[in-house]
Amino acid sequence: MRIAVDGMGGDYAPEEIVKGAVIAAKEYGVQIDLVGPSDRMNQELAKHDVSGAEIEVVHAGEYLVEGEPPAYALRQKRDASIAVATKLVREGRADAVVSAGPTGGVVAAALYILGTIEEMSRPVAGGPFLGFAPNTLMMDLGTNVDCQPYQLLDFAIVGTVYARKMMNIPNPTVALLSIGAEEGKGNEVVKESYPLFQKCGLNFIGNVEGYDIPSGKANVIICDGFVGNIVVKFCESLGKTIAGWLEENIRGKLAENEIKAITEGLLRATNAAAVSGGGPLWAVNGVACVSHGRSRHQEIAKTIEQAKLAVEKDLVGTLRTELAAAREKLKEAGFEPFTSA
Amino acid sequence: MRIAVDGMGGDYAPEEIVKGAVIAAKEYGVQIDLVGPSDRMNQELAKHDVSGAEIEVVHAGEYLVEGEPPAYALRQKRDASIAVATKLVREGRADAVVSAGPTGGVVAAALYILGTIEEMSRPVAGGPFLGFAPNTLMMDLGTNVDCQPYQLLDFAIVGTVYARKMMNIPNPTVALLSIGAEEGKGNEVVKESYPLFQKCGLNFIGNVEGYDIPSGKANVIICDGFVGNIVVKFCESLGKTIAGWLEENIRGKLAENEIKAITEGLLRATNAAAVSGGGPLWAVNGVACVSHGRSRHQEIAKTIEQAKLAVEKDLVGTLRTELAAAREKLKEAGFEPFTSA
Repeated sequence: MRIAVDGMGGDYAPEEIVKGAVIAAKEYGVQIDLVGPSDRMNQELAKHDVSGAEIEVVHAGEYLVEGEPPAYALRQKRDASIAVATKLVREGRADAVVSAGPTGGVVAAALYILGTIEEMSRPVAGGPFLGFAPNTLMMDLGTNVDCQPYQLLDFAIVGTVYARKMMNIPNPTVALLSIGAEEGKGNEVVKESYPLFQKCGLNFIGNVEGYDIPSGKANVIICDGFVGNIVVKFCESLGKTIAGWLEENIRGKLAENEIKAITEGLLRATNAAAVSGGGPLWAVNGVACVSHGRSRHQEIAKTIEQAKLAVEKDLVGTLRTELAAAREKLKEAGFEPFTSA
Repeated sequence: MRIAVDGMGGDYAPEEIVKGAVIAAKEYGVQIDLVGPSDRMNQELAKHDVSGAEIEVVHAGEYLVEGEPPAYALRQKRDASIAVATKLVREGRADAVVSAGPTGGVVAAALYILGTIEEMSRPVAGGPFLGFAPNTLMMDLGTNVDCQPYQLLDFAIVGTVYARKMMNIPNPTVALLSIGAEEGKGNEVVKESYPLFQKCGLNFIGNVEGYDIPSGKANVIICDGFVGNIVVKFCESLGKTIAGWLEENIRGKLAENEIKAITEGLLRATNAAAVSGGGPLWAVNGVACVSHGRSRHQEIAKTIEQAKLAVEKDLVGTLRTELAAAREKLKEAGFEPFTSA
């Protein structure tokens, strides 16, 4: 299996990306296409022992930076590392692409170069994000901001495939994130989504509240990307705040290494990148995995492992089948056919 | 000053409510109208030393329960404690009403019995909710689920008055909660709200992300009640989860009382009811304060104190003046006049 890694994506590129790629090549036995300016890529590779690691450098003269409008930047920088890496997948040379961002650029490259699968309009991002709830994933986490009910339903199908294939949960429970458990509670989109969720053949257990997220009450929690993004970023920040507060409160009362173990455990458990190591962009015609911008080499390696798993489990094909089945169920239940187009 | 307390509202009613009312009557020198079935109210009062506490029981034969559709329940139960208590304010007998819920019932009673002030369609709830960010309040937290830009602007004006009057922050910074700091980031409502916020005379500092909530980056963070409710409930639940995890990880390494101090400190800091003790429902024609359903006597007493403060600071009058001023500024800036009606 060959995975194209965007060597210039992420806050700690290229150092941490290359280091993560070397680790993944050795540990997971994948071949890596390392995409970026060849001099910088080779310079980084020279810092590591690469014996036994199958890594090729693929030259890309440019790269995206945080803050650029992604679609515009991709048009201006045709030789950007994320574009070159994604094209390797389209051309069939690589089985998957991995990047640590900017997320908007990875999404745009996936959308324009690979395209989305039938009836879905944009890539979807999500996954487990809280170490205390390892069997719970949430989606979307930011790529789809204003959503219609049929989109939330698509996310639920994606989430079900994710939980089944990547987390080995045979019959994942699905819930809508809302502000009360009862069917009538929520904003308009959630209220309109409820009956669709009931009839599409998913293991739908109703609404959950913000209070239920850490408890593992549902395996798949569905929300729009605006809400999801805010919750996940708040989670990371609150974890960091509590870790700092805790350190102050137990300083001198516990050994330094014990304090470090506790605060680092807390930081890991509340940081989406550390919990899932990045994951696939769903609804894409191919495997494209995006990792948090703040990813270090461990998270990069983990994301490459996720990409490998996604290819092995044929996520794209499975999702196509599941989407078709859910749409068929809704048609039988008397709902109008719908598309994102 | 006389405050009407709904003796039957909240998960721990009437015991904890009555206990909190007795404490408040003694500590804050307010007169209390304790509203509920008179036998149960008197029975609870008999458990306490009420010397020096000015408390009168006002009979109400019924009360609302969690899960009832609030508007319907209020029509069916004309003698419900929250309705009777709110009417005491309308009649001018009491200066404020305090209840621990159900929130929907308190909101509906305030809306139908007291009404809202000019150009605002529904009561607004919010306040500080995170002990780590004592100078940051968020609103709305659940009473306004689907919002238009002019509503978010109203919340911002409310929040500014709140921060200035109740938190003694002279020139509070205001931000929109979004998924990126740049003006173009966010869902449609946030993007449309941005220019209104820039021109209305508030101390607007732009968007903040979920990541910025705990940092105190803004004094007033504005979101719709769907997002706000999810964030606040998630915060409470995550705090509880981390406290439990922490307890397991430091058990045996610290003294019992030290562990207890840390976990209880964490629980308090992440629980909105403990942080702000409930607060005023804004936009109401009168002072109505709602406390968390899980409030114990300390939170009830604190909410009564908040109600007293709200009356003393003439929140209702101040808000009217500020709303008019912001609308005038927007008109000068060329925006169409708008109302919630």
